[in-house]
Amino acid sequence: MGYHEQYSHYVGMIEETIEKLMPQTEEVFSKEGAMPKLLCESMRYSLLAGGKRIRPVLLLACCEMLGGDIEQAKVPAAALEMVHTYSLIHDDLPGMDDDDYRRGRLTNHKVYGVGPAILAGDGLLNYAYESLLANAVDYPHNLEGHMRAAKAIANRAGVCGMIAGQSIDLSSEHMAPDADRLAYIHTHKTADLLTAPLLAAAYIAGASEEQIAALERFGWCVGIAFQIDDDLLDVEGDAALLGKQTGMDAQRGKMTWPALVGVEAAKERSARLWDEAEEAISCFGERAWFMRGFADQMRMRKS
Amino acid sequence: MGYHEQYSHYVGMIEETIEKLMPQTEEVFSKEGAMPKLLCESMRYSLLAGGKRIRPVLLLACCEMLGGDIEQAKVPAAALEMVHTYSLIHDDLPGMDDDDYRRGRLTNHKVYGVGPAILAGDGLLNYAYESLLANAVDYPHNLEGHMRAAKAIANRAGVCGMIAGQSIDLSSEHMAPDADRLAYIHTHKTADLLTAPLLAAAYIAGASEEQIAALERFGWCVGIAFQIDDDLLDVEGDAALLGKQTGMDAQRGKMTWPALVGVEAAKERSARLWDEAEEAISCFGERAWFMRGFADQMRMRKS
Repeated sequence: MGYHEQYSHYVGMIEETIEKLMPQTEEVFSKEGAMPKLLCESMRYSLLAGGKRIRPVLLLACCEMLGGDIEQAKVPAAALEMVHTYSLIHDDLPGMDDDDYRRGRLTNHKVYGVGPAILAGDGLLNYAYESLLANAVDYPHNLEGHMRAAKAIANRAGVCGMIAGQSIDLSSEHMAPDADRLAYIHTHKTADLLTAPLLAAAYIAGASEEQIAALERFGWCVGIAFQIDDDLLDVEGDAALLGKQTGMDAQRGKMTWPALVGVEAAKERSARLWDEAEEAISCFGERAWFMRGFADQMRMRKS
Repeated sequence: MGYHEQYSHYVGMIEETIEKLMPQTEEVFSKEGAMPKLLCESMRYSLLAGGKRIRPVLLLACCEMLGGDIEQAKVPAAALEMVHTYSLIHDDLPGMDDDDYRRGRLTNHKVYGVGPAILAGDGLLNYAYESLLANAVDYPHNLEGHMRAAKAIANRAGVCGMIAGQSIDLSSEHMAPDADRLAYIHTHKTADLLTAPLLAAAYIAGASEEQIAALERFGWCVGIAFQIDDDLLDVEGDAALLGKQTGMDAQRGKMTWPALVGVEAAKERSARLWDEAEEAISCFGERAWFMRGFADQMRMRKS
């Protein structure tokens, strides 16, 4: 199977798992508690909005690379996508980025209202842990692996991880660029949720300390390079629009690498990080073919 | 030790554990990730706002009643209080209840802003799971017990539990009272988070199926009776204010038992439930002295 076929195969597994974990419900007021129809619908609206599934694909691919049991990794992969999706719903809210559109569709609160969108986000975050814990109980012989996988996801998503990055990002708007602050934001807001699937896969598959360190390095390099490229694409988009080359993010006073060090230096930094990412997983040899393909695709993207 | 001394003793253990899990931080932009200062401060603002700690006290008391190791229960108790606190922060937001005050203090978003309050809630919810999972890893000989305890908390707090209750509550405003709908809201919005600590304690302490069923019954009765009493206190407060006895909640078209069946029938239902709660834990005999005292105190409350 080629890279793109394999990618589609993983996406299919992820969407099938999401459907199993969260089918559309009918309203039933039973004491036992079915998921309310509107809550379920609003969570599904964002969860099935056609994202690229980068994080869960990484989890499945990494698990296979390590020779782990991919069946055990499906629910953690879907749970990670729930975490990512909740963060987008809450990010889009008034008081946060206040966006009306995402991926060409109305944002969750524009369709369901602010209150239901807050609950949809809370619901997805909590259901990610409900799913991770239920899955762990299903594999008693690998309970510790699943526990550590869930913990890795929780920590990378949490108050010293993604939420920390969002918090500092929110309080840094319109500040003068600062390298330490920017590195912190990118590491936690972007890279942590790309490292999470690698660590989760590693614990489920019982990887060695050296393998875990290599995967952490890979995830961090990919995350930071991805973010720098994102900022560069914004700058080039703006430049094309404005007819000039500029190192400042014109959009909304956002702190970026091009703004901090200039476009050329940012490009060099990104190239170095992509090389380093590839070097990091060289220890896995041929087994890393998909992960290498993944990094190549990310590196070449133009939007 | 008498009941009130024992209660204070439990509260002391809970607040000490919260301080250990979430001390005030200084801003450090390290790659490893310290908790951002403002995020930490905003979470602590609500977490240390002087609540009664009902849920974590129930967890510790139930664990002791069952002969479990209370050391293992401290972190789950603090985590449950984080879950409760996040739900209050998000409930108070514009788009939800839009409240300016809680327990006589400004609500989280009135002090820190809407965006940071959303993140403070997300942070507390996620950190609850970070804490539960870290604690589980600390007790490898009781890993399955901790996993089931975390799962019980997650399920009761989640999309078929507390969040489900909030979702239906939000979509039921200004609707005509309906017994099934009301029972669903009270069961999930109120009772589920009172049953969660009992189940968590049961799994940590390795309780029997019969004990678990008894505790579930106790938690549900206490939760529903507590909610009916709440609505009755509101009615009587309104009645005192308005100089008349009324079965409708004057405040904001909220669906309540007094509105549905009248004040007298609601009082009878509450009395029956408190009796049933006591009956449910009779199987624990003398060991249930604190739990009985807890139910008595709740039953006698006047505000």
